Amino acid sequence: MSGADLPPKYRTGNVDMTHGGGGRAMAELIEGLFHRHLKNPILDQGHDAAVFDVPPGRLVMSTDAHVISPLFFPGGDIGSLSVHGTLNDIAMAGGRPLSLTAGFILEEGFPLADLERIVISMARAAREAGVPVVSGDTKVVEKGKGDGVFITTAGVGVLPDGVSISPSAARPGQAVLVSGSIGDHGVAILSKRENLEFETEILSDSAALHGLVAEMIAAVPGIAVLRDPTRGGLATALNEIAHASGVGVVLEEDDIPVAPDVDAACELLGLDPLYVANEGKLICICEAADSDLLLKVMRAHPLGARAARIGAVVDDADHMVVMRTGFGGSRVVDWLSGEQLPRIC
Amino acid sequence: MSGADLPPKYRTGNVDMTHGGGGRAMAELIEGLFHRHLKNPILDQGHDAAVFDVPPGRLVMSTDAHVISPLFFPGGDIGSLSVHGTLNDIAMAGGRPLSLTAGFILEEGFPLADLERIVISMARAAREAGVPVVSGDTKVVEKGKGDGVFITTAGVGVLPDGVSISPSAARPGQAVLVSGSIGDHGVAILSKRENLEFETEILSDSAALHGLVAEMIAAVPGIAVLRDPTRGGLATALNEIAHASGVGVVLEEDDIPVAPDVDAACELLGLDPLYVANEGKLICICEAADSDLLLKVMRAHPLGARAARIGAVVDDADHMVVMRTGFGGSRVVDWLSGEQLPRIC
Repeated sequence: MSGADLPPKYRTGNVDMTHGGGGRAMAELIEGLFHRHLKNPILDQGHDAAVFDVPPGRLVMSTDAHVISPLFFPGGDIGSLSVHGTLNDIAMAGGRPLSLTAGFILEEGFPLADLERIVISMARAAREAGVPVVSGDTKVVEKGKGDGVFITTAGVGVLPDGVSISPSAARPGQAVLVSGSIGDHGVAILSKRENLEFETEILSDSAALHGLVAEMIAAVPGIAVLRDPTRGGLATALNEIAHASGVGVVLEEDDIPVAPDVDAACELLGLDPLYVANEGKLICICEAADSDLLLKVMRAHPLGARAARIGAVVDDADHMVVMRTGFGGSRVVDWLSGEQLPRIC
Repeated sequence: MSGADLPPKYRTGNVDMTHGGGGRAMAELIEGLFHRHLKNPILDQGHDAAVFDVPPGRLVMSTDAHVISPLFFPGGDIGSLSVHGTLNDIAMAGGRPLSLTAGFILEEGFPLADLERIVISMARAAREAGVPVVSGDTKVVEKGKGDGVFITTAGVGVLPDGVSISPSAARPGQAVLVSGSIGDHGVAILSKRENLEFETEILSDSAALHGLVAEMIAAVPGIAVLRDPTRGGLATALNEIAHASGVGVVLEEDDIPVAPDVDAACELLGLDPLYVANEGKLICICEAADSDLLLKVMRAHPLGARAARIGAVVDDADHMVVMRTGFGGSRVVDWLSGEQLPRIC
């Protein structure tokens, strides 16, 4: 049952309940599709669990469930996203990711060719990130009890000595940086969902940020907070940090990078880019004295080319996020109370 | 937003799309329900990723997606099962589990009170196993795009020095042991699903096996294979081992423990207990000379009280599993080709 033996039915067939039954059909799918594309020495051990060496020290562990709709979108798909999402959670704690696991929940009737596209994309994202998928699991639910494919990934990484990054570590006087323009992912998904056409296609920014983070930490080990502003966007992430750290944040509207086409699309769609999800951007909070060096390091990296200083941490008993507008006014940037865009990740 | 502040609506309300939106409703649900029940120092760090110390050596990592239906069943529910399932994958590699993550995919409209029951059960299972849930994620899908609750857990553990347990390590002459009677989990689920009543209620055997495994390894570090016969049951697990190790297996039908009520239920339902899922049993393959000592150790543990030697590994170029029946005959115990019981875990 090696990969080369993949029966032709996997090219044209659909997921059926036998693919989750624990028998031969499931074994063929796992060997022929998952292992063939995700191949690496640890996965090839063929256990239900993967074994690998780990250096002594502190471990970082995280998980993300992915239910994005549509499954394929400009700039990525649920496969690449499920790799990037969990790697970024590990990176935001300062961790160097070591390995990933993937749990698939498949809906009966889902085309196997689409599943293969997703697994190939996942494999490419893992390879580019240098982090193998070492173990996985597949379940199948009846038609109408799922939605094509859900993927939950988990990851572990190691935390370098001396690094102590935490959402509760922001202190008044520190600078707030962002690694690039905001809102791309959410707008890309919504454009696809609503079949909107723009002059240039807006792509999701989905990307693995641990390489950028490693260079930032090498330059400034004392970074206080890192955070990827996913669901709920920049506004929600900053409110969470303000809440966790017991501080306020003041943003400068004119300094927040938003791509012109994303800005235009948000206007059209009635969205505020501050609340739109990103999948390849990070917020960094650091001592003001370190911000120039960090911006230089970030801008030298392809994923931080448009990095900017967008505000400062302030003393505020109410833990508010306030934005100073271009006209000298200011407004409160509140928590997102409901849901702006369902199933964005 | 501490646990004590849980609004009364969480007692009577339902999951809605805002609980997955990344805003205040989601934060309240996570704090009020997940963190309140799963409370532990690592989870309380409040990162998207968890940080903890790990001893030097080899790490074991695994994941399991859980889509069981019904969510609540005699002897457990999806919460306890999702803890046991992943802990057992780690234990079957010989690992001592350190920590778990949990990704929840919730269907819009699911009662929050049922979700709380599940989280409480998960917390109890984790506490009893001595392994904390250190990080999690919650997503919500529209009504009709999921089925109540899916839970994907992942876990890491450490592998003791000198242990090398693998499904490909079975060799002719070794003994095949099982830790107790088979088929309980599958029959418990099916009885509930079909509303069958038996004289005594059949309970799932869902349990965390890492404590039993630790005692077995302490007694016999050179155990060759450990495997939990879940989906596809004992028959499928043994076929997988035979295939991976390039050996055959001969089973003695009379030595395979099956509880009388499970046997009767299987007869009624037209099931073969060899193919019925277990969630608290293990297969152990070891040198024949070690089997008496291992059986003694297993029987001294509450989860191995009915442990038995059920067969032997043999030389067989066709990698077949054959069962000698009580009447001196024998039959091939083939792979499960399709699915006997959908959504059993």
